[in-house]
Amino acid sequence: MINPNSNEAVTEGLRQAVAPLAFAEGPEIICETLRDGPFGIETQEHADSVTIPLRRRVEAADDVDAFIIACYSDPGLHVAREGTASPVFGIAECGVLTALTRADRFGVIAIKSRSIPRHIRYLRQMGLMDRLAGERPLEMSVAESASGEGTLDRMIAVGTELKERDGAGAIVMGCAGMARHRRPLEQALGIPVIDPTQAAVAMAIGTLVVR
Amino acid sequence: MINPNSNEAVTEGLRQAVAPLAFAEGPEIICETLRDGPFGIETQEHADSVTIPLRRRVEAADDVDAFIIACYSDPGLHVAREGTASPVFGIAECGVLTALTRADRFGVIAIKSRSIPRHIRYLRQMGLMDRLAGERPLEMSVAESASGEGTLDRMIAVGTELKERDGAGAIVMGCAGMARHRRPLEQALGIPVIDPTQAAVAMAIGTLVVR
Amino acid sequence: MINPNSNEAVTEGLRQAVAPLAFAEGPEIICETLRDGPFGIETQEHADSVTIPLRRRVEAADDVDAFIIACYSDPGLHVAREGTASPVFGIAECGVLTALTRADRFGVIAIKSRSIPRHIRYLRQMGLMDRLAGERPLEMSVAESASGEGTLDRMIAVGTELKERDGAGAIVMGCAGMARHRRPLEQALGIPVIDPTQAAVAMAIGTLVVR
Amino acid sequence: MINPNSNEAVTEGLRQAVAPLAFAEGPEIICETLRDGPFGIETQEHADSVTIPLRRRVEAADDVDAFIIACYSDPGLHVAREGTASPVFGIAECGVLTALTRADRFGVIAIKSRSIPRHIRYLRQMGLMDRLAGERPLEMSVAESASGEGTLDRMIAVGTELKERDGAGAIVMGCAGMARHRRPLEQALGIPVIDPTQAAVAMAIGTLVVR
Amino acid sequence: MINPNSNEAVTEGLRQAVAPLAFAEGPEIICETLRDGPFGIETQEHADSVTIPLRRRVEAADDVDAFIIACYSDPGLHVAREGTASPVFGIAECGVLTALTRADRFGVIAIKSRSIPRHIRYLRQMGLMDRLAGERPLEMSVAESASGEGTLDRMIAVGTELKERDGAGAIVMGCAGMARHRRPLEQALGIPVIDPTQAAVAMAIGTLVVR
Amino acid sequence: MINPNSNEAVTEGLRQAVAPLAFAEGPEIICETLRDGPFGIETQEHADSVTIPLRRRVEAADDVDAFIIACYSDPGLHVAREGTASPVFGIAECGVLTALTRADRFGVIAIKSRSIPRHIRYLRQMGLMDRLAGERPLEMSVAESASGEGTLDRMIAVGTELKERDGAGAIVMGCAGMARHRRPLEQALGIPVIDPTQAAVAMAIGTLVVR
Repeated sequence: MINPNSNEAVTEGLRQAVAPLAFAEGPEIICETLRDGPFGIETQEHADSVTIPLRRRVEAADDVDAFIIACYSDPGLHVAREGTASPVFGIAECGVLTALTRADRFGVIAIKSRSIPRHIRYLRQMGLMDRLAGERPLEMSVAESASGEGTLDRMIAVGTELKERDGAGAIVMGCAGMARHRRPLEQALGIPVIDPTQAAVAMAIGTLVVR
Repeated sequence: MINPNSNEAVTEGLRQAVAPLAFAEGPEIICETLRDGPFGIETQEHADSVTIPLRRRVEAADDVDAFIIACYSDPGLHVAREGTASPVFGIAECGVLTALTRADRFGVIAIKSRSIPRHIRYLRQMGLMDRLAGERPLEMSVAESASGEGTLDRMIAVGTELKERDGAGAIVMGCAGMARHRRPLEQALGIPVIDPTQAAVAMAIGTLVVR
Repeated sequence: MINPNSNEAVTEGLRQAVAPLAFAEGPEIICETLRDGPFGIETQEHADSVTIPLRRRVEAADDVDAFIIACYSDPGLHVAREGTASPVFGIAECGVLTALTRADRFGVIAIKSRSIPRHIRYLRQMGLMDRLAGERPLEMSVAESASGEGTLDRMIAVGTELKERDGAGAIVMGCAGMARHRRPLEQALGIPVIDPTQAAVAMAIGTLVVR
Repeated sequence: MINPNSNEAVTEGLRQAVAPLAFAEGPEIICETLRDGPFGIETQEHADSVTIPLRRRVEAADDVDAFIIACYSDPGLHVAREGTASPVFGIAECGVLTALTRADRFGVIAIKSRSIPRHIRYLRQMGLMDRLAGERPLEMSVAESASGEGTLDRMIAVGTELKERDGAGAIVMGCAGMARHRRPLEQALGIPVIDPTQAAVAMAIGTLVVR
Repeated sequence: MINPNSNEAVTEGLRQAVAPLAFAEGPEIICETLRDGPFGIETQEHADSVTIPLRRRVEAADDVDAFIIACYSDPGLHVAREGTASPVFGIAECGVLTALTRADRFGVIAIKSRSIPRHIRYLRQMGLMDRLAGERPLEMSVAESASGEGTLDRMIAVGTELKERDGAGAIVMGCAGMARHRRPLEQALGIPVIDPTQAAVAMAIGTLVVR
Repeated sequence: MINPNSNEAVTEGLRQAVAPLAFAEGPEIICETLRDGPFGIETQEHADSVTIPLRRRVEAADDVDAFIIACYSDPGLHVAREGTASPVFGIAECGVLTALTRADRFGVIAIKSRSIPRHIRYLRQMGLMDRLAGERPLEMSVAESASGEGTLDRMIAVGTELKERDGAGAIVMGCAGMARHRRPLEQALGIPVIDPTQAAVAMAIGTLVVR
């Protein structure tokens, strides 16, 4: 699992998020930071700046059975897939697909509103728009959302709008760094909440273990 | 994981298929046979006959954290979901969603051609038709496909048509009893092959472990 | 025309609703109650509980030229079709299709909000979502909506929202027991209102008479 | 029911096609010929040349409760609707919608291949493309198809391709003048065949009788 | 470029709107008024009344390399195309397609609300609904919108709603006579604004010059 | 107009292709080669390797009113748009949108089959799949297709399949270096052929001139 931004705190959060899925007999899960990445991925430029570094990282790995790109924009997903025979998963893709198993229509909590057109464009590319209830922003920085005290309250407020006004039956947390809010958010909203990093690891395990 | 048909051999095949995902620290995976089910689910009548028994089974379980309905028609999926606070997964849904992580468009190998309109209708219900390359039948009985010697050869022939003529980049095996053919089929075709029962168990583990 | 719930009052309402279509030279229209049905169909469990009884009823009929399932969830439609060479119509399907002849986008008045995801899923299965303006609930029980005095007022309020806020150019009454409200609702809203039971009988007559 | 071409033989065929639906207690069905129409409607120019004459005819009628435009291009449908408070039905629209009650995907038999892009454009306008199996031409003139001896044989050949190669589960005869071939075609193909003029009259009766 | 209404002031506005695209070495741009047209095209009847006159005009031209129909309903587009080997452009089609190059989802400013269902139907025919953010009306007459003083203010108000509430990233001015408001509207809204007549001339030049 | 590959011969071909659109009073058209680009863009890696260099080039330009990225994969389109207030056009987007003005459904001639899934994914992202007739490959290298003698013959063969078998009414040449084949291909096929570089320049002129 590669965190394409260079913020080690996010990578540490990933480790904790996916630790419950690191079974003794299962695949080893290694979370690493992309050295060349920006500190956070908030723009298209940030996203596009990591595609080739991710490709290089994937090509250089000779003992990795599956890769996960841990950024909700799934940067470099297709170029990474082209560069390896191993499966490559994107957390946005896996998060959304997992949400489809929990409700007829899902909502997405974005960090910032400027990411939403990029996410919508990606959902349309995946052919999944018919199942989207809506996407709404926290309007926080990635840093704030990961560490700030008011984050959960804001997520509950936004999640409630997605549920009540947009008709979402499940929520995808649209960021790699929100896993610790999953359970309290689920309890507050009363509908399933998907952490996309956990969703991606589970799908990767399914692919690896039964080889 | 409930096999909605009453064929114990199929249930035993499920046990073997998902055994690699039964981690010591992970959730226990119990495969059971629906006593009231028909011997195989080949028609709409078969599928509809098990919906209420599946609901009853789900309601009666007080120590189950997630359910998987192990039939590629996902019979009773919505009525089971209505009857429990635990997540309920259908193998068709999970198989197809997992295929979307491996290729732009996927193909489905059906047992019989008469199931295809039912599957297409269900794919349209899921809003996923834009990603379907095609579905083609083996034209075998479930029993034949599970045990017959020529099954793998026939699967390779049908899978090749899905790949070459329909443009499928990944294949979903459209039946609960085909898991042992997954690996040789994947090697013969050179594209990912998804066993839907394994896909469903992986997604269920992701949901359960991180609760 | 089979009322899949066991409420004889609903069946009697059906008889009155479709009586104008019972022409002397036309097909005889028989409205009957499904003995095994629940008192009302308000949940997925209710809907799934009648599918096999409907199949049995259809199979047992040897002098029926067409069947109509008179519940807005169209329960058992496909399993009934599988069991007979005669055409089988669902009132939801016929109601929606008839609405498409009257306006570019239609709205649906549901009895309860919890039915809406089920209806939306069914509309997506039919491939007709592009024409849906919206669906809004009365939030009444079937019994209330059929007999209560305030029903028409509530229907006018909900229908007005569908017209004004959602842009509906025609309204489908999403229940088998609302026929007597059709004309006054149409007059109040100023746009066509479709009773799905009448729509289904008309389409069935077209199929039968020209055989 | 207005035949927008000036071929009286076609109008006479309409009379015979819909005669079984002219119930004594039901609405009177009057089939008339549009005097200003071309002899057949085979081009976009033919279709557009009748829109305003159809509007005028509809406006001039003061004792007509519903109108049917009996040409498979539904020329003037929207301008006619704008000109009257009575419902206006198009046979293409009603034929296709009725086919949706009989099969998951339908096929259309066109007279000539040059009409097919026009029909496809219209199906896309109706939002119904997801249910189209395919459309194939007879490559006959309207006159030939209405009277020629080999018409039925050609229809069976084309219908068989729609069924076998395109996966059509029902067939719409894409012309106003094919009603007499409906039953033999249905028997030859073994799947439902829809005459769009009869479908439209049935839907109109449903609308009128229950006013 | 044919103005299908008989209002010479609109034609004069077209001349001014497209004058910057009349390059000395480029194709000559002739704006003319359709003599038989209504004074404005505000209804389906207006639109359908000009289709055959437009066809006649196109057929009569022997020295025209491309035609543009300058009305946002694109009346007669297909019948004109059928009547000439030269390309025929509609301003609505070109305006919307050009908007797709400037934003993920676009909004349309209509003159009157009653045109909106006609425009939506046309967008669905073009298969472009997935990119529509919304369409909202000025509720002015064509004459008012072309000349009235308050037009720009009203356009800014409506454009702001399309941007803020519907999420439009670009605006199409849904009328042939609004070109002079383009630049101030763009400045006020801060997102691209498309004049459909200019968009159509540019696309026509591309087609002609490189022949 | 930036050729994102470093093949100067392709850039020279662009100059010739768009020269007829370089009007004396119009915008100056400068075709330049991206120094950092690969020799040809045939893979996802090639495409992703130029996104950030394109962004840098766009940011560095202080006297450019509009940008065109001249590669049929539209690499870096969104990151370039994020980096400038000037409009940025992609030739694939403009080529396809222009094709929509010439036919109901279009076909694409690709250089190699391995590009087709990338193009399809992009078409789905644009929401334009409903208008695609098909895409078929020449199976040549970019170099061969630009210079080889047999290129036109192969294009005619592939274009004929798109027209006859897939129903394409217009053809988009899916490469930046095919402009000189446009006219003979159009004459051979009898349907419009779009050169995407010319289409993009025309749309850019429309945007610039009327500022």
